[in-house]
Amino acid sequence: MKIVAAKKILKANDQLAAENRALLDAAGVFGVNVVGSPGAGKTTLLEALFAQLKGRLKPAVIEGDIAGSIDAERIERIGVPVVQINTEGACHLDANMIASALKELDLAAIDVLVIENVGNLVCTAGYDLGERLRIVVLSTSEGDDKAHKYPAIFQGAHAMLITKTDLLPHTDFDVERIAADYKRLAPEGEVFQVSAVHGDGVAEAADWLADKCRQSK
Amino acid sequence: MKIVAAKKILKANDQLAAENRALLDAAGVFGVNVVGSPGAGKTTLLEALFAQLKGRLKPAVIEGDIAGSIDAERIERIGVPVVQINTEGACHLDANMIASALKELDLAAIDVLVIENVGNLVCTAGYDLGERLRIVVLSTSEGDDKAHKYPAIFQGAHAMLITKTDLLPHTDFDVERIAADYKRLAPEGEVFQVSAVHGDGVAEAADWLADKCRQSK
Repeated sequence: MKIVAAKKILKANDQLAAENRALLDAAGVFGVNVVGSPGAGKTTLLEALFAQLKGRLKPAVIEGDIAGSIDAERIERIGVPVVQINTEGACHLDANMIASALKELDLAAIDVLVIENVGNLVCTAGYDLGERLRIVVLSTSEGDDKAHKYPAIFQGAHAMLITKTDLLPHTDFDVERIAADYKRLAPEGEVFQVSAVHGDGVAEAADWLADKCRQSK
Repeated sequence: MKIVAAKKILKANDQLAAENRALLDAAGVFGVNVVGSPGAGKTTLLEALFAQLKGRLKPAVIEGDIAGSIDAERIERIGVPVVQINTEGACHLDANMIASALKELDLAAIDVLVIENVGNLVCTAGYDLGERLRIVVLSTSEGDDKAHKYPAIFQGAHAMLITKTDLLPHTDFDVERIAADYKRLAPEGEVFQVSAVHGDGVAEAADWLADKCRQSK
């Protein structure tokens, strides 16, 4: 009985996600769902990417958090329109929450919508939000066994962005190991290595995102 | 309706957790629930603590993972009895899973049972497993805003163990900020700083755990 209920919820979510996707497509807005552990560096990555993409893309952000608005304030500070969703305990965003947040955005004024999901390598995997692209963010300090241990979220991601590469000399993180595990789960997936703090690799990831956005038009 | 169902599930979990606690108490086993993000360094911390506690405590471990048994193999390698639970997608352990795992352990041969929960700062907060002590593990590389952003898990923890302090010189992590946030949520909570790799702070955390275990008898 419980399984049926869960399936029903997921089916309803898929329907709402399809509606979000149709709405974004009609407005010419490319939706990106960014997932990863707490502290993977998602917000810092977005700050770096948006700085790199200035003049090329007009972004907006939906910030998903259990509580508070620290990340949304950071995005606001760099002049990017942002809507905060507080899930009040829920471990992931869902398509219904996104549908509500979309009403608060001027879609005509943007061309890419980045949704920063709740920090979670598990729950976020099961919920389509209506995005066209899903990116999993993993920091070098989290360890190179994460694709093996949390396969669903890596399997569903179009790219894996390895962040905090500036910490590589201080960890035993093996880029080749995690890349091999990820490629087994997502053979078409792209792998990027970024240090948002030092700027390494940001341009490559930004160019790829801009290309993906352009191709979708 | 959905809310009622969720409450029912949590109530059933609480009942099973109470039964686990009674079983562990009767066997003289101190239950510890270790929670934290993926990659916070929970398993590495356990390896360091068990090395420090050799001859003082007889531990066993229950490893909770979505998939795989990497962590359980590491615990087995250091000669500590271990049971692997694969949640197959679920983002937290629950008391029912622990009840099953307890049947696989010789409780008469141990005095502390450490349950390493699924890597998750959200879902694990809501589920009592029957433990006497809950420890939240947070690495310096995750950022010092986590207690603010994920309050429930910090509020319910008897101690916060800050791991990877060897990375402090390479991050902007502010120990005092996170300690203040944590103390606001859990005024009685203890704070430890540990580098499991370099060994700093391991003895203090191990002594505290041994004391807690002794006091419970």
